[in-house]
Amino acid sequence: MSISRERLEELEVIRTKLGVKFDMVSSMTIAVMKRTKLDKSFNNNGFIQNRCYANPTSKDKLIIFDTSLRDGEQSPGVTLSTEEKLEIARHLSILGVDVVEAGFPIASTGDFEAVERIAKEIGPLMTGREKIGKPIVVAGLARTTEKDIKRCYDAVSHAPLHRIHTFLATSDIHLKHKLKIDREECIKRAASAVSYAKSLCEDVEFSSEDSGRSDKDFLCKVLGKVIEAGATTLNIPDTVGYTSPSEYGELIKYLIENTPGGHKVIWSTHCHNDLGLATANTLSGIHNGARQVEVTINGIGERAGNTSLEEVVMNIHTHPASYPVYHSINTQQIYKTSTLVSSLSGMVIQPNKAIVGANAFLHESGIHQDGVLKHKQTYEIMRPEDVGIFNTNIVLGKLSGRNAFRSHLIELGYGDMNDTDFSTVFERFKNLADSKKRITDHDILALLSDQVSGYGLESQLFQLKSIQVVSGTHEMATATVKLFDSTKNQELIDAAIGRTGPIMAVFGAIQRLVQCKVRLLHYEVRAVSEGMDSLAKVVVKITEDIDSSGLSIEGSEKQSVESKDYSSEGEMKLTKSTFHGHGTDVDVILASAKAYVNAINRMFESNIQATTGKRRSFLEERTANV
Amino acid sequence: MSISRERLEELEVIRTKLGVKFDMVSSMTIAVMKRTKLDKSFNNNGFIQNRCYANPTSKDKLIIFDTSLRDGEQSPGVTLSTEEKLEIARHLSILGVDVVEAGFPIASTGDFEAVERIAKEIGPLMTGREKIGKPIVVAGLARTTEKDIKRCYDAVSHAPLHRIHTFLATSDIHLKHKLKIDREECIKRAASAVSYAKSLCEDVEFSSEDSGRSDKDFLCKVLGKVIEAGATTLNIPDTVGYTSPSEYGELIKYLIENTPGGHKVIWSTHCHNDLGLATANTLSGIHNGARQVEVTINGIGERAGNTSLEEVVMNIHTHPASYPVYHSINTQQIYKTSTLVSSLSGMVIQPNKAIVGANAFLHESGIHQDGVLKHKQTYEIMRPEDVGIFNTNIVLGKLSGRNAFRSHLIELGYGDMNDTDFSTVFERFKNLADSKKRITDHDILALLSDQVSGYGLESQLFQLKSIQVVSGTHEMATATVKLFDSTKNQELIDAAIGRTGPIMAVFGAIQRLVQCKVRLLHYEVRAVSEGMDSLAKVVVKITEDIDSSGLSIEGSEKQSVESKDYSSEGEMKLTKSTFHGHGTDVDVILASAKAYVNAINRMFESNIQATTGKRRSFLEERTANV
Repeated sequence: MSISRERLEELEVIRTKLGVKFDMVSSMTIAVMKRTKLDKSFNNNGFIQNRCYANPTSKDKLIIFDTSLRDGEQSPGVTLSTEEKLEIARHLSILGVDVVEAGFPIASTGDFEAVERIAKEIGPLMTGREKIGKPIVVAGLARTTEKDIKRCYDAVSHAPLHRIHTFLATSDIHLKHKLKIDREECIKRAASAVSYAKSLCEDVEFSSEDSGRSDKDFLCKVLGKVIEAGATTLNIPDTVGYTSPSEYGELIKYLIENTPGGHKVIWSTHCHNDLGLATANTLSGIHNGARQVEVTINGIGERAGNTSLEEVVMNIHTHPASYPVYHSINTQQIYKTSTLVSSLSGMVIQPNKAIVGANAFLHESGIHQDGVLKHKQTYEIMRPEDVGIFNTNIVLGKLSGRNAFRSHLIELGYGDMNDTDFSTVFERFKNLADSKKRITDHDILALLSDQVSGYGLESQLFQLKSIQVVSGTHEMATATVKLFDSTKNQELIDAAIGRTGPIMAVFGAIQRLVQCKVRLLHYEVRAVSEGMDSLAKVVVKITEDIDSSGLSIEGSEKQSVESKDYSSEGEMKLTKSTFHGHGTDVDVILASAKAYVNAINRMFESNIQATTGKRRSFLEERTANV
Repeated sequence: MSISRERLEELEVIRTKLGVKFDMVSSMTIAVMKRTKLDKSFNNNGFIQNRCYANPTSKDKLIIFDTSLRDGEQSPGVTLSTEEKLEIARHLSILGVDVVEAGFPIASTGDFEAVERIAKEIGPLMTGREKIGKPIVVAGLARTTEKDIKRCYDAVSHAPLHRIHTFLATSDIHLKHKLKIDREECIKRAASAVSYAKSLCEDVEFSSEDSGRSDKDFLCKVLGKVIEAGATTLNIPDTVGYTSPSEYGELIKYLIENTPGGHKVIWSTHCHNDLGLATANTLSGIHNGARQVEVTINGIGERAGNTSLEEVVMNIHTHPASYPVYHSINTQQIYKTSTLVSSLSGMVIQPNKAIVGANAFLHESGIHQDGVLKHKQTYEIMRPEDVGIFNTNIVLGKLSGRNAFRSHLIELGYGDMNDTDFSTVFERFKNLADSKKRITDHDILALLSDQVSGYGLESQLFQLKSIQVVSGTHEMATATVKLFDSTKNQELIDAAIGRTGPIMAVFGAIQRLVQCKVRLLHYEVRAVSEGMDSLAKVVVKITEDIDSSGLSIEGSEKQSVESKDYSSEGEMKLTKSTFHGHGTDVDVILASAKAYVNAINRMFESNIQATTGKRRSFLEERTANV
């Protein structure tokens, strides 16, 4: 799905008009302030005071910095395409996120292009941000080298508001074992990196990796130098998710009080959920002076994930009086964004997940909840409407026309879709309506997430044309599959048997057609709504099977996205990569085949990038632990 | 799966010997103390001091009270059979849980029987508890009426150590709107209920429902009277998951300091995760004097769930110096118990769940993690071994014999299995080995969880015999299904088509055979391990389709488990019930059929109980918000 040219031109006009519309000020938008000639003022605590008509009180603005596309995408097996990243960024903009960390531009040409396109296409958008009065800030990550920083600037600078986010470890264990530098060198590197970034861009963030295990006074020293060099936001990651709320809060407080110039900048939290405390630690950070929180949708991220945006925001929303801050998130967009991220990343949400889990509001669809109504005030602290949980009533059916469908897409936040994309999704909608009576928002969002991931697009290497299956308890499953190979421009057809059932038969036939041995790491199906005619959404994770003989992809270097690294001897370790794919259909077998082909397309695409030098290279570039 | 008679007799011998083995004392075991003639001593804080050779320090014992089987089972759509509850209780005992809340005996004959059997069969077990030195305490829930309390006592008293847990709301909003009583009456009811419970049983817990919104000084008054009446544990539920860690901690502290006799009893936390803070609130409770925590495995429970056992325990385990308590959980049993509860309850665990999520330890199976090894000390705060995450290496294969399999089952905690059950599961293992080369612990646990849920048992109403399926992109899916109906003692066979694919065809044929219209609410599949030959685990949720014509189950009253309630006018509202089912097979279609039949069996069983009066009745009995 891409934004039409007309729309882009329209946005460009809006963008140039924007200068006079800004009426909120924060350190992150110093660049903007210059343009708008607004003064910054300081509140009692010395924090930069945000003035906004939406908040006539004396509270500070809490900056919501979403890193779903950077730290979230580092989750094992999650591989988002550029189109998928754009779609998520667009929803984050509508959601009211203040800063989106779009990626790590130096990591690969693919990453650079994704950040650059987000800066160009999402950076100027004002849809849904009318009350906020300015577009999203597009940030990119960079290590402390000039090359990294320049590359980051080249990607993000296309956005009207942009930020360079640079990071360096400050704990002795990291300095000694990972970076092999001393404390003096650490200070020097950090300060000169920030100086250089500042020469390119007013809005510079610095993160001290492994802050939790750094010597506090050394940390204050580094951060002081970094402020001197021009950093406007200081981020304090709890890299290993180890601290408790009181410890983390005390650290933030200590740093603000003891860092030279600490009162001039925005302090930021970045917590991990290894011990289930990411939300509590982040909130403790806010109570102790942090005015930016780094979060992800659904709490996705490495290991047990990052702090989840929805939990932090709904805590403040539910207890406004308890927090010294306000936020600009449109909470009614939370559920929609959560569904999109889960769908595109393949990271499922457990039913008992706070705020966005299927059970979070006791809303068991199809079951009358009359009994609960009486208790509503007695037991409910949030209303499902507050987070935009949509009802599952009939929304559209077989007889709905193009206009009705188009206006429904606009409601769902897909107003920018071009005509070609619209025609494809409308055709799929009509096909679905043939086999499914009641089509809900869940169904439409599932179709759309497929579409974003390239379903039916001619750009896809392999396109699934048809399958046919016979199976049963007492017989060997057999499948026939037809694919279209767009590079060879020809249809391929073959059959295979499956010792363990029809899915194995289908996957086996696909492997024959694409001439590649693939290992299935994960397979998961979920009905997107109720009823036997529900769409089934399948997620698979695969890896190239290098144990198998001769059938590997030509030209593949088998370099790893997840686990290629320098060993302590500086030698390279090469291992495999994982790729996820998803597919949607009312038929589980067909949905499985689509998901499998989708994952295989991602794998081939990545291998092509590797051979053409567009692929991400090594672990330290790929996974920043901030 | 049931414990053999021989084993029970053996346990009885252990039980009678136990009296002299106890060397730990806590208020929850006052009944035991009398028997063992040990004195109780008090520490500086006035808390009962536990003396235990495992803890030579001056720290207090933290009592882990697991309510997976009571509050956890209240999760929407979760319906555990008695056998499943027994299996979970047995694993909780091995895990080292101190108190298991086995159910709500008054709710129905089925609930009573489950609690009674847990008391009889799990109550005396010492397997894995050698270091703890005593068996698990079996608790049951009761409202403040004599009938409830007597019924609870009759169920739990079969356990050597048992507890009555009674509860009453103390907030004005509940007193006025729900109970329609005044404060005086509230105190009277609470105190007399505890007095009566105390006359039956030394170990009595009282919960003040909706403590968070109760007037603090009134709460102190009620709790003081309850202590006077003999309560040994006071539980303070944050019913709606609304409080912050500091608020909840302050409440606990205030109550301990201001309740007459507050220093003589154990205070307990009970938190919900609506705002993602259950773990942080519980830990804050501990810091402020709570010495019991009410938790569930995987944090299952209504809405966003309860505090999760594994998160609380691993926080203390990782930061032993930060907490004034120690615990007796065998952390290496956590992952196994988590897998079992997820499997039997059908509540999936998201990959980024803390401690037990698939990504929690970066352990992407099948991918070399060489690169990570270097960073091990740098980034890991817990080792996967600490929570018992087992490797996915080949553990057993086609040639493994009965003995090898038996000893493996013992390692997995299934040492008590009787010969009939063993033969069934061994046969299934051999069948699996025919189609799957490498059989891992994940596979075996999946087979076992099926077994617990009655796979292949003659007691099951309908047993799946065979299926046969034809489907494809351009043809209507067709399925033929053969079931055995154990009431009629005959085989049934029929076919159906599926407009949306083979699953619909199979489910349609099953509906024809059981002569009942069923609505599919939820459908989910997950491969339990890697590879195309992996077992697929299917979870379905269904409800009787009362919108459909004439085909409902005879004798069904269509009374609801989830949502039957008195309206404000005292009138009854009848709605439907939901039932989950799960099934495991290498063939996704076959696994789906098994899961569907499993859910239908649960539904018929429940309807039979309803007509024979064994079914749970109304909401207030069924769902206690404590």
